[in-house]
Amino acid sequence: MPEPGGASRLRLPGLCFLLQALTILLFAAFVRFSPESSPGLCSQPLNCSRRNQDSGLQHPRFRDGHLQTLLGFGFLVAFLSRYGPGSVAISILVVAFAIQWAVLLQGFLHQFRNGKIHLGAQSMVRADFGAAAALISTGAVVGRVSPAQMLLLTLLGVTLFTLNEYILLSLLGVSDSGGSVTVHTFGAYFGLMVSRILRQPHMDQREEQRDTGQQPDVFAAVGTVCLWIFWPSFTSATTAHGSAEPWAVLNTYFSMAASTMATFVLAPVLSEESTLRMVQIQDAAVAGAAVMGMAGEMLVTPFGALIAGFLAGLIPPLGFRFLTPFLRSRLKIQDTCGVHNVHGLPGVLGALLGMLLAALATADAYGGRLELVFPLVARGSRTRTEQALLQLSALLLSLLLATLGGCLTGEL
Amino acid sequence: MPEPGGASRLRLPGLCFLLQALTILLFAAFVRFSPESSPGLCSQPLNCSRRNQDSGLQHPRFRDGHLQTLLGFGFLVAFLSRYGPGSVAISILVVAFAIQWAVLLQGFLHQFRNGKIHLGAQSMVRADFGAAAALISTGAVVGRVSPAQMLLLTLLGVTLFTLNEYILLSLLGVSDSGGSVTVHTFGAYFGLMVSRILRQPHMDQREEQRDTGQQPDVFAAVGTVCLWIFWPSFTSATTAHGSAEPWAVLNTYFSMAASTMATFVLAPVLSEESTLRMVQIQDAAVAGAAVMGMAGEMLVTPFGALIAGFLAGLIPPLGFRFLTPFLRSRLKIQDTCGVHNVHGLPGVLGALLGMLLAALATADAYGGRLELVFPLVARGSRTRTEQALLQLSALLLSLLLATLGGCLTGEL
Amino acid sequence: MPEPGGASRLRLPGLCFLLQALTILLFAAFVRFSPESSPGLCSQPLNCSRRNQDSGLQHPRFRDGHLQTLLGFGFLVAFLSRYGPGSVAISILVVAFAIQWAVLLQGFLHQFRNGKIHLGAQSMVRADFGAAAALISTGAVVGRVSPAQMLLLTLLGVTLFTLNEYILLSLLGVSDSGGSVTVHTFGAYFGLMVSRILRQPHMDQREEQRDTGQQPDVFAAVGTVCLWIFWPSFTSATTAHGSAEPWAVLNTYFSMAASTMATFVLAPVLSEESTLRMVQIQDAAVAGAAVMGMAGEMLVTPFGALIAGFLAGLIPPLGFRFLTPFLRSRLKIQDTCGVHNVHGLPGVLGALLGMLLAALATADAYGGRLELVFPLVARGSRTRTEQALLQLSALLLSLLLATLGGCLTGEL
Repeated sequence: MPEPGGASRLRLPGLCFLLQALTILLFAAFVRFSPESSPGLCSQPLNCSRRNQDSGLQHPRFRDGHLQTLLGFGFLVAFLSRYGPGSVAISILVVAFAIQWAVLLQGFLHQFRNGKIHLGAQSMVRADFGAAAALISTGAVVGRVSPAQMLLLTLLGVTLFTLNEYILLSLLGVSDSGGSVTVHTFGAYFGLMVSRILRQPHMDQREEQRDTGQQPDVFAAVGTVCLWIFWPSFTSATTAHGSAEPWAVLNTYFSMAASTMATFVLAPVLSEESTLRMVQIQDAAVAGAAVMGMAGEMLVTPFGALIAGFLAGLIPPLGFRFLTPFLRSRLKIQDTCGVHNVHGLPGVLGALLGMLLAALATADAYGGRLELVFPLVARGSRTRTEQALLQLSALLLSLLLATLGGCLTGEL
Repeated sequence: MPEPGGASRLRLPGLCFLLQALTILLFAAFVRFSPESSPGLCSQPLNCSRRNQDSGLQHPRFRDGHLQTLLGFGFLVAFLSRYGPGSVAISILVVAFAIQWAVLLQGFLHQFRNGKIHLGAQSMVRADFGAAAALISTGAVVGRVSPAQMLLLTLLGVTLFTLNEYILLSLLGVSDSGGSVTVHTFGAYFGLMVSRILRQPHMDQREEQRDTGQQPDVFAAVGTVCLWIFWPSFTSATTAHGSAEPWAVLNTYFSMAASTMATFVLAPVLSEESTLRMVQIQDAAVAGAAVMGMAGEMLVTPFGALIAGFLAGLIPPLGFRFLTPFLRSRLKIQDTCGVHNVHGLPGVLGALLGMLLAALATADAYGGRLELVFPLVARGSRTRTEQALLQLSALLLSLLLATLGGCLTGEL
Repeated sequence: MPEPGGASRLRLPGLCFLLQALTILLFAAFVRFSPESSPGLCSQPLNCSRRNQDSGLQHPRFRDGHLQTLLGFGFLVAFLSRYGPGSVAISILVVAFAIQWAVLLQGFLHQFRNGKIHLGAQSMVRADFGAAAALISTGAVVGRVSPAQMLLLTLLGVTLFTLNEYILLSLLGVSDSGGSVTVHTFGAYFGLMVSRILRQPHMDQREEQRDTGQQPDVFAAVGTVCLWIFWPSFTSATTAHGSAEPWAVLNTYFSMAASTMATFVLAPVLSEESTLRMVQIQDAAVAGAAVMGMAGEMLVTPFGALIAGFLAGLIPPLGFRFLTPFLRSRLKIQDTCGVHNVHGLPGVLGALLGMLLAALATADAYGGRLELVFPLVARGSRTRTEQALLQLSALLLSLLLATLGGCLTGEL
């Protein structure tokens, strides 16, 4: 991290204090716990149908408070651990602020009733997604911007993420429970555009080193472990419940297993080193999970998850070998942690897969699950093709918003 | 750790063996699993009402066995990780013994029927609290006493903790589900008094170094991660169930987020270093959680948790800068891990907050929750003011007991 | 790890690709998600009775998908962390492949209906056990065989494990929910036999070093923490549900606590060092959990768990001091990670304990639990003595199969 010298030393504390004071004021004005914990407070038809559905299945709701937040923070930690111990302090600051900000913004869009935001465990899960997207974005610029800039980036990133998510999930009725598009693709391209605007040519050398594994192996090992334990369960935390859930969890595990195999196939061929570094295995696990974000609850057959995971696992080694140098030399985009290879492209692949699967979604293949995964298709108010086109448009819209927003943020 | 030389080398093994043999004998004589897993075996009216309440809400009880012990040990681990890898071996020994001992003692007070202690998952959760208090106490003296002394300290600390907890929760009907007073404040002041008695003037130099971050960053990062994942869920494991639970979880998360921000505000101002060390962020998280221990289930508005967390997050940097040197030079109290700043003061702050909230607890603000959080107030057998005074007296009583007990233990 | 030189460099990628392609083809041909998530698809009477039993108790089945896979991978990670960061990359490869392979093979034996394997969350839990056994086996040879050989060993190890487990649990009706015999003993002796066949006399020196703690303390500390958090809950994930579950969880915790105490008793006496290394504490925790694998759900009294854990905790220090040198010098068996001391012998002890407890299982002591733990005894179709003899024969059969299979695999 660049040393903030002299006068600028107090900029970060000042900014932290301002933002925290602002958040406290907004919370005081607007946020309350919901009278009973998360009853039927749902604003859009999509979520309503799901929530009612599962409240029938799942009597002891209160247990969710524990489990979902447990999984949620495990999920965030899986992101945290991608950054070396040097930058993990800043990452935790980003998380601490992003969560508060995301709770506020998402509350305004989703849980605003009678001038108050009514908070429940579900709000925290949504906020975790926002914080995850912000972390991915910071991964593209970490080490090249000051912590204060990082906080501003988080502020704008979470705002745009919330807007994008609201348009996609609530207005368009797109199905993206694990965040292939909303979290991974959006976060990665937003960060990349910011990185493009902020690029500092003379730092190319230093980046190069960072890229190739200064991260100690122990840290990467712990990160991989967190990924395997918490991620699959969490990315399916917002999926349609009932019978749909185990599918998303299992698909994600299969995808992660296959992407790990793929990295072992490709990495030794591309590099001169004979042994894999832990960080490559971590990248494979992230890519394998990112590709399943959208498709996880749609895939009917486990071998589809294996194939998708295998393809996703090929992306990071190929990307670091060919694409990152190209981005850096031609497009002048520096990508400190390789978020394009690890989150961006696998997310795009996942979105394309989701589009394909939406086009193939028939009542025959899904049975009762169709109502859960694509409620509008099941009710006949939308055809399969329309749903597929909407899934595609979600990808394009996210890319557009991320690019424009990233440019704007970078300029600021 | 001081090298136990020559003849004293066998003192630790001998003591371990004796204590383990004693525990096995007592277990053989008294402890049995309850015939059905933890049915209505509750000795005091307070817990009964809660337990009956939740057994109505929560049909598949058996799941708790898994989840609570999972959370419980995650919680303990969050404490463990405060100590560097050098002392973690001893900490695990402390945990291994403290849990057995706490199960025994708490069993005698709470689950003693027909000459037998009837054990369930709930017993394990209580025992975890006892082990946590013992770990906090050892944090004040770690590095300056031998492992055998540490075991004796654990033995006495857990005994006094159990006694204190019984008086507060069962006899006085104080509400302290997350242990602000019983765990954090009691553990910290008990450890500090032991430290005062055992102080070795010539070791001041060595302490200084330990204090300022010999702990490697990776370890502190892993610890912070465990804190964020497991602690909030656990400290609310014993709260009133039903709708009350998510409040405590969410309040603790908000408090931890705000205390992290506070540390970023204050720490750079106070120290010469421009970047924060991970261990400071870990301290902030602990303080943020400690302050929510008592108030977590009482706070009706999330912004209260943000403010309390922000104040708690200011304590560790201020404490390490001004208070620890003062304690060392004037009061001759050495505090190896700074438990006073991290557990003691935030716990006191949490208790004062809990008193304030108890005084403000009206049926209007709480609705049906009042019965869960303050059953005696809800039933009219106690006024709000009485409850608030009792919460305050709980703090004072704990401080008194911790101080006296610590002196006694230190002398032994 | 030996450097794969020149031409052989592509052997591992090629093998990975072949195995992954084969798995994808087999998955495509045979594996489907079960229409509703894991309904009454049970092939053997033993499991059926249990599953029906618990589906009555546990209404919201879907939560299992989350929790069981969460626990399952935490469990695997506890194994992973036994190996130093140097070999953890290979271990993750082993897991990634073993899980896919175990899902396939166990699916053929347990969930094969109308030409398809119907997959559910339960399949994943079973597959985790298979992967755990494979990891134990690789622990005996890690550092001395190439990664490609490791994969072949995994392929054959998982195959034999599945066969052994099917014979024991389904055909003989042996009760071994936590895998004392099927996972620990089988995995350890299989690995040892492979190690015997593959021994390379000139590498004795290097082994010696590995053995005595090259593993950094931080990694071992993280591993111990994962063990304490995830293992007890997981080893009881397949136990009879209802009231039986908490017993297994609590017994395992008590056993781990006592085995940790035992290591503190014995290790300082046996070695010259005065402080324990974290890896020894980790070994104690593993041994304490291994001994409870079979007996965990049978033990009626917690002090039994304490005694068994204490005995198990004595095994690793004694084994590393006396047995490993003997194995190496006399029997020419190298045991890189000491799996014989940590998994093998405690597993055998656990099996003998299980036999004893089966012989003592009366309806008086168990009450309604007898039906859950020993359904065939409860129904009168088998006497207690027969059950005890079957538990013993399970141990002998596993040892035989592991030894023969290990020889065969080593030759290949």
